[in-house]
Amino acid sequence: MSKEILNDISHRRYNPLRGSWVLVSPHRTNRPWQGQQESPSKTTLSEYDESCYLCPGNKRAQGESNPEYGNTFVFVNDYSAVKEEQAEYKVPDQDGTLATRLLRAEPVTGKCYVVTFSPSHNLTLADLSPTQIISVIETWTSIYTAHLSPTSPLAKVAEATKIPPSGAHSSILSPKEQYRYMQIFENKGAAMGCSNPHPHGQIWTTTGMPEEPGMELEQLVKYRREQGGANLLEEYATLEATKQERVVFENKDFLAVCPWWAVWPFEVMVVSKVHKRALVDLNADERLSLAESIAEVTRRYDNLFQTQFPYSMGLHQAPLDGSKEEIEASHFHIHFYPPLLRSATVRKFLVGYEMLAEPQRDITPEQAAARLRDCGGELYRKKLE
Amino acid sequence: MSKEILNDISHRRYNPLRGSWVLVSPHRTNRPWQGQQESPSKTTLSEYDESCYLCPGNKRAQGESNPEYGNTFVFVNDYSAVKEEQAEYKVPDQDGTLATRLLRAEPVTGKCYVVTFSPSHNLTLADLSPTQIISVIETWTSIYTAHLSPTSPLAKVAEATKIPPSGAHSSILSPKEQYRYMQIFENKGAAMGCSNPHPHGQIWTTTGMPEEPGMELEQLVKYRREQGGANLLEEYATLEATKQERVVFENKDFLAVCPWWAVWPFEVMVVSKVHKRALVDLNADERLSLAESIAEVTRRYDNLFQTQFPYSMGLHQAPLDGSKEEIEASHFHIHFYPPLLRSATVRKFLVGYEMLAEPQRDITPEQAAARLRDCGGELYRKKLE
Ligand SMILES: O=P(O)(O)O[C@H]1O[C@H](CO)[C@@H](O)[C@H](O)[C@H]1O
Ligand SMILES: O=P(O)(O)O[C@H]1O[C@H](CO)[C@@H](O)[C@H](O)[C@H]1O
Repeated sequence: MSKEILNDISHRRYNPLRGSWVLVSPHRTNRPWQGQQESPSKTTLSEYDESCYLCPGNKRAQGESNPEYGNTFVFVNDYSAVKEEQAEYKVPDQDGTLATRLLRAEPVTGKCYVVTFSPSHNLTLADLSPTQIISVIETWTSIYTAHLSPTSPLAKVAEATKIPPSGAHSSILSPKEQYRYMQIFENKGAAMGCSNPHPHGQIWTTTGMPEEPGMELEQLVKYRREQGGANLLEEYATLEATKQERVVFENKDFLAVCPWWAVWPFEVMVVSKVHKRALVDLNADERLSLAESIAEVTRRYDNLFQTQFPYSMGLHQAPLDGSKEEIEASHFHIHFYPPLLRSATVRKFLVGYEMLAEPQRDITPEQAAARLRDCGGELYRKKLE
Repeated sequence: MSKEILNDISHRRYNPLRGSWVLVSPHRTNRPWQGQQESPSKTTLSEYDESCYLCPGNKRAQGESNPEYGNTFVFVNDYSAVKEEQAEYKVPDQDGTLATRLLRAEPVTGKCYVVTFSPSHNLTLADLSPTQIISVIETWTSIYTAHLSPTSPLAKVAEATKIPPSGAHSSILSPKEQYRYMQIFENKGAAMGCSNPHPHGQIWTTTGMPEEPGMELEQLVKYRREQGGANLLEEYATLEATKQERVVFENKDFLAVCPWWAVWPFEVMVVSKVHKRALVDLNADERLSLAESIAEVTRRYDNLFQTQFPYSMGLHQAPLDGSKEEIEASHFHIHFYPPLLRSATVRKFLVGYEMLAEPQRDITPEQAAARLRDCGGELYRKKLE
């Protein structure tokens, strides 16, 4: 079969979600590695660390103290990349000069939050049970809801859903402006620039539509128009569920798949099987399915190389504010981008060729999915106890 | 002046060369850093290392021996990401099924070379004199020339130029097919995935047009059409030469600038002041100017944090094969993407928000340029000797 040839030859795969290509060189993992080794992450953290600014009761950078919180805890980032208020910058009019044509800037305001996943300093998403992860999902949902444009069709859904605002204290959730997009993400592990091992994620909310979700939204809208209202990711989930070869895990509502177009060696996308525009479209039962999918992916990651598997992950969903068409075309999904390739200490570098020319990967997504399928079950750390 | 406000507020800057945006948060470097530290690179390499597969006379992975070469040395990568010959893969016809619509692949063939910069195991571009760097530029030029389409307007220029094929043995430079693009690049330092400290670069040549130069080419063609034949990068170089605030170094032919839209903290673009489509458009005098610019940038990098400054760098120029319009719109330039931000050991991570939403930077390009302007002069290592 011509498809199997793709395990042996160099080829490019198309990512319809971004409208971009990735170079796949399956034979290339054979090369010897004498380069940088990551230090394997220590798994010997204590449940509470008095020097951690995220643990319950402790003081943060700017002097405020954290409450003795139960599940999750949300606060405005003490070093926000964007702020709600700042000096005004007026974009100069295009006046035909080189400067207005080639030196273009626009102001960005917004709000940045930090969300801890658990009061325990040493419990990552891989350690938490689906029921515990539900608190995280509820917190994300309530923050998303608090920032939704009142004119969005999703605002009504949110009102009906009535998510308990666990962890998110309403006093901090009062955006000064209507923002365009909310990016919820987690950097896990020192290899991914995380500077505090207490499990936490971030939320950056901005007046502008950022590049990546902007590109995806354009592609989703285009697909919907071209395919008579069909949804790209719903169709993709259906297709992958039939094929199975790239599926890592599935339950009745979600699919965890190494996408056909994956860039990172063990990249995974968690995608809802039917069309869900955003977190607020999920009911309690579907939130449990999502929690289970997150638990399954993160546990398999840690089991793969028996380490705290580093990654960046993030949610893509409907913009807070946008046209009806944009909101309808949106499809809730989570990307996991982990850097490790061969072992707990050897990562894949996306450097020279990847930065200057095109992303390149060394193993096929099918090979990655097979390996992740094979390491389900209990977390390796529990077995060692 | 409203322009100075950009030193204090969050804003986005537009990159007309890619058609994309970058988020700038100048206030953000104030945050404390408890995250990953890079090990500062050792500068105590010897001139010759018997275990190095790039040193003259030594054996390579597949058993071949390197000649006792003088300046540069070129060989076909023993672990090429793309190969000249492989099993055939026929792209299936679009037949209206989900599979042909969403699981698209195309075969890629090509040729990958390794180019050493000097016989000395311990001499990086920052250590070499402009005259020594000319050998590297001549080698790049002769490899590029050997792969040019005979129908390209550049092929005639190349014939007239007659670059000496230094380092590139004609026996290895016989491509089996006409390739579309040649990416010349260097990964320097363990932090950039480089697995051998012997100074060297790579060249990957492919049948397909890779994403990054493809995006740039589209933007360059568009600009030329919209601006009545004007060249985007020539106009940009003119503008920056007038403003000076982002200029790191210039000579009569080239400008080294921290671009308005830079993503990496100390990103630099070396761009020709007048319209040059590719390496073959440079005469001997201009090659010396380019060598001097490369020497100036790499030396300043090392001086900045008194370390072997890691980076990925790469040349963008006209495709080997393409339409007349594409070749005319191309403008020769080099991108330097270095990861360090604060010191020899603290880098900028482009992770969660950057991967999922939009590239984000913490210092302005103007601040970066000022610091690089201030660390010219002799290489710090020489002063310590
Ligand atoms: O070819 P090398 O030096 O072994 O490999 C390095 O550069 C390549 C091209 O940028 C990357 O794909 C690899 O991840 C990196 O480690
Ligand atoms: O906000 P943190 O955790 O200090 O910082 C981390 O995540 C940010 C968002 O992806 C990045 O811009 C930083 O480079 C990274 O170190």
